[in-house]
Amino acid sequence: VGIDPVWERLPAAIRSRVDNSSDERRARAHLEAIREYVASMFEVVAPHVPCVKLQSACFERYHGPGVVVYDQLIAMARGMNLIVIGDAKRGDIGISASHYAAGCLADSNYSDLGNELGPDALTINSYFGDDGIAPFVKVAAEQGKGLFALVRTSNPGGDAIQQLQLADGRRVCDAVAEVVAKNGSNHVGKSGYSLLGAVVGATKPEDAARLRELMPQQIFLVPGFGAQGGSADDVRACFKSDGSGAIITASRSIIYAYEKSDEKNWLKAVEAATVDMKRQVAAILQ
Amino acid sequence: VGIDPVWERLPAAIRSRVDNSSDERRARAHLEAIREYVASMFEVVAPHVPCVKLQSACFERYHGPGVVVYDQLIAMARGMNLIVIGDAKRGDIGISASHYAAGCLADSNYSDLGNELGPDALTINSYFGDDGIAPFVKVAAEQGKGLFALVRTSNPGGDAIQQLQLADGRRVCDAVAEVVAKNGSNHVGKSGYSLLGAVVGATKPEDAARLRELMPQQIFLVPGFGAQGGSADDVRACFKSDGSGAIITASRSIIYAYEKSDEKNWLKAVEAATVDMKRQVAAILQ
Repeated sequence: VGIDPVWERLPAAIRSRVDNSSDERRARAHLEAIREYVASMFEVVAPHVPCVKLQSACFERYHGPGVVVYDQLIAMARGMNLIVIGDAKRGDIGISASHYAAGCLADSNYSDLGNELGPDALTINSYFGDDGIAPFVKVAAEQGKGLFALVRTSNPGGDAIQQLQLADGRRVCDAVAEVVAKNGSNHVGKSGYSLLGAVVGATKPEDAARLRELMPQQIFLVPGFGAQGGSADDVRACFKSDGSGAIITASRSIIYAYEKSDEKNWLKAVEAATVDMKRQVAAILQ
Repeated sequence: VGIDPVWERLPAAIRSRVDNSSDERRARAHLEAIREYVASMFEVVAPHVPCVKLQSACFERYHGPGVVVYDQLIAMARGMNLIVIGDAKRGDIGISASHYAAGCLADSNYSDLGNELGPDALTINSYFGDDGIAPFVKVAAEQGKGLFALVRTSNPGGDAIQQLQLADGRRVCDAVAEVVAKNGSNHVGKSGYSLLGAVVGATKPEDAARLRELMPQQIFLVPGFGAQGGSADDVRACFKSDGSGAIITASRSIIYAYEKSDEKNWLKAVEAATVDMKRQVAAILQ
């Protein structure tokens, strides 16, 4: 389940409690509401799914204090034995990439920052090639953590770059897939998967089978299921024939499920949407 | 001047003051040292250059407290009339991109976050195409700010993706350049430049002239001058014939200039390197 909390869309039950806060503490009040909302999401989804993905942008929007809450929520989810993916899509080279890996993925080695537990995995951008990926792989390997590098994104605009045909017949996203496969090949665990996975959007079924072949050692993180239009049929090719190899994520269709039904019983609406999505994904694997 | 502060490379004069701090406040001590160092950098370079570029990763490495210091330093530089580029290379789509734009570019509208002034411009990643760029352009236009989208990065590994030839004869970075040019075309000021600029590495002179033609309305942000190997000759093609159109940045060759000369007079070494770089760039434009 993808957690992309936006103040304006929180349930009225939570918003009304802080909506009248003074301007002098408005951001703090919004952040408190978001923290409460996300903690409730964890409680509701934890019995049903193995993994949550937290959208960093929704917290960075509140600057330093937002990042503090993001870190706290990551630690909370890990304490509940959820696998936590930090969806921060960082990308840079050299020392900058190493610093992003230390800040956004590693468990902190600074006790005065509150002993933050980093997420279990981080999303990264692949456009820099090898030397943009290697510093993240190094830290992930040291820490026993994972990465998902962007290969094929779920938005329509990605086509203008990722879907272009190369002179040798491949697509741009194929070339990126090969860079990712190569960079992950030295870090493959006993299940046959690398610590370096790939982001492949649920809305691109025409590419999924080919990318699955090009990246046999990559776990696919598959966003865009639900609200963005990706269906169960669309994501089938992201799995291997043994049913492993893909993490399907839905965000808005689950965490805002109450908008379309019963706002008063918002937690029940979220749980029903979670179970419904789980059933859809299970049906793919039969 | 690019500001990429790394604790281990700060002058001994600054490090020795906090090196014995207890483990319980080690990160805070490092951050204080970095704040002092960067403030000194601003003082030294402000009389010589129009613009500083702050590397977000070097602050995010210290989690929430690091982001607080990053924000404070941006406000300090803006108060000194330096143009400030936030080098955060954010990239996402939809509401996530909007949130990054609000958090990493806009001046904060939350008074309880300390009235943060955002940077004048932000670096962004282009791999998502139109719908990854548009949300940033919207916020930049509302705020009278700027953006630099990655087109051709300065690292060797970028070639494996950005330099690939397309079936129609273009390079991948050419296609990205056209996406950037198109997305900036509705936001061109009276000098003929768009609020959406482009990152074009100083180490890729073979591409610069072609990219300059493909992006006539883009100001180029040109990293990789100095330590990464880009020379004055290499960056000439990034400028237009009237001498406008490019911001050349050097980071390590300036801010760590004292490592190669006189650590005792580290501020003088930094100033000398700044003046030297300025002279090299001026020579290109004669």
